[in-house]
Amino acid sequence: MLGGIEAGGTKFVCAVANDDLTIVERIAFPTRSPEETFNDVFEFFDKFQLKALGIGSFGPIDVNEQSPSYGFITDTPKPFWSHFDFVGTLKEKYDVPVFWTTDVNAAAYGEKMKGSAINNESCLYLTVGTGVGGGVIYGENILEGFSHPEMGHILVQPHAEDPFEGGCPFHKNCLEGLASGSAIEKRFGRKGDTIPQDDKFWKIEAYYMAQALMTYTLTLRPEKIILGGGVMMQDHLLASLREEFSRLLNGYVATPDLSEYIVTPALKGDAGIVGSLLLAEKALREA
Amino acid sequence: MLGGIEAGGTKFVCAVANDDLTIVERIAFPTRSPEETFNDVFEFFDKFQLKALGIGSFGPIDVNEQSPSYGFITDTPKPFWSHFDFVGTLKEKYDVPVFWTTDVNAAAYGEKMKGSAINNESCLYLTVGTGVGGGVIYGENILEGFSHPEMGHILVQPHAEDPFEGGCPFHKNCLEGLASGSAIEKRFGRKGDTIPQDDKFWKIEAYYMAQALMTYTLTLRPEKIILGGGVMMQDHLLASLREEFSRLLNGYVATPDLSEYIVTPALKGDAGIVGSLLLAEKALREA
Ligand SMILES: Nc1ncnc2c1ncn2[C@@H]1O[C@H](COP(=O)(O)OP(=O)(O)O)[C@@H](O)[C@H]1O
Ligand SMILES: Nc1ncnc2c1ncn2[C@@H]1O[C@H](COP(=O)(O)OP(=O)(O)O)[C@@H](O)[C@H]1O
Ligand SMILES: [Zn+2]
Ligand SMILES: [Zn+2]
Repeated sequence: MLGGIEAGGTKFVCAVANDDLTIVERIAFPTRSPEETFNDVFEFFDKFQLKALGIGSFGPIDVNEQSPSYGFITDTPKPFWSHFDFVGTLKEKYDVPVFWTTDVNAAAYGEKMKGSAINNESCLYLTVGTGVGGGVIYGENILEGFSHPEMGHILVQPHAEDPFEGGCPFHKNCLEGLASGSAIEKRFGRKGDTIPQDDKFWKIEAYYMAQALMTYTLTLRPEKIILGGGVMMQDHLLASLREEFSRLLNGYVATPDLSEYIVTPALKGDAGIVGSLLLAEKALREA
Repeated sequence: MLGGIEAGGTKFVCAVANDDLTIVERIAFPTRSPEETFNDVFEFFDKFQLKALGIGSFGPIDVNEQSPSYGFITDTPKPFWSHFDFVGTLKEKYDVPVFWTTDVNAAAYGEKMKGSAINNESCLYLTVGTGVGGGVIYGENILEGFSHPEMGHILVQPHAEDPFEGGCPFHKNCLEGLASGSAIEKRFGRKGDTIPQDDKFWKIEAYYMAQALMTYTLTLRPEKIILGGGVMMQDHLLASLREEFSRLLNGYVATPDLSEYIVTPALKGDAGIVGSLLLAEKALREA
């Protein structure tokens, strides 16, 4: 059995799949302390004979195999999780090949291999949820250098009619500080799903997201951009941000037709767990 | 002999090297019309027995091997060069493996293999000259997706004390529109090398560049950033943009020590031609 873990800040999903990647069983439970959460993780996987594990985790995480803290969650504001040895804790119980990466990298991998980007050579997966984060795949490879990307924190130009000064504790008005689900909550004092579709704020949101997609397009040149996360539940956003993207980029570089280029995940909410299982298979293949 | 061409908008450099990549002969001449320029190119290379050619060209160029216009310069404002079949013109005379990429990709490759990033797994090379452009290498691979990057045109936040509204014909106040050598000339009505080192403009320039380096850091995570081009002749800029980078990024992600991370090319002005020769060798190896 291949095992996959989508380790989110609020929810864990665990699943096992056959060699052909059909999911046999899956479970979801809330993220609590590492000890409590891992009790549930072990209870689930102990029932199966694991051959490999793929993990897409909330971050920041250490993905440098040369580092003494490889496989750890690093500095996170999330209580109890800073410096938790995620991979080590699993390896102690299951002595199998493990693929360890970020939640968004796993989702990007899932969409690349089995989702919206199945016919593309490269893709970017971006989540606009509580935070903003992204992962990029070229061929079968996850983009990674000194560490994994943190592309939610790029700077964007403030909108002239946006009174909000930004909510990122590190950068104030970076993309996440202006356009994430939490930024929307801070701006309005209530959640994004209560803001009517015709509120002019959504044009501002589209403006910020379009700037970011323009930056990712110019630097990464993915063949496809896939947008997930809670804020994208506003389905009118897709059309207005494509329009804004086109206006801003102004034809400077060619892209695929925007209706093909900027899309939502074909795997819907399963991109992360499917990607994790695919990465388990990759770990096994490369072991 | 390995042949290399650094095809710049104002100047061509051609060189031939032995298998160990020692340059045997080189020549530089001004870029004129394709016909005139290629007369000089042919005259130079005809003297040698070429085994492979590496080309780093000004752009935009078509690097998609599946495309009918692969090897062409695409739409350029440069008179006579739009839709010129660069690779085809060479292949007609020299039936050898050719590596075709952008000038900044070639320079990045040169710096990665023989320059400042020789001990790194990845690097970004950015030129801040007439325009702004960048290339990225991971391992031995040039980052490329739908096409090559055009990372000079990302948007940055305008500086509150900069009266200049930006000079990019496509985006007005993108990075190139605000911080390139031509943007400086438009802003002051004279060239950047006439602006005194203590002019407060250089802090503004550092602010724009630092924002861009922050964006590249968060999206690409290179192990090293190498800054070339005419504007970097202002050598005080390096220190002030490191400082500004550190202030803006605000510790959000780890980087190598900034004095190691943000540097100038070890190969100086030769990064492009050395990279082109290395790419000729790569073409030969992979043929
Ligand atoms: N329909 C909606 N419209 C706007 N924002 C929404 C909507 N649904 C959820 N959100 C916001 O998305 C965020 C949660 O994102 P989600 O991707 O579900 O979780 P997480 O990022 O924590 O994994 C919250 O800030 C929430 O307010
Ligand atoms: N010392 C200097 N200080 C500031 N700007 C300079 C300096 N030297 C050259 N430049 C500017 O750099 C640009 C040329 O960049 P360069 O890298 O030499 O050529 P190109 O980008 O055309 O290949 C011009 O705009 C020029 O004004
Ligand atoms: Zn931020
Ligand atoms: Zn521009």
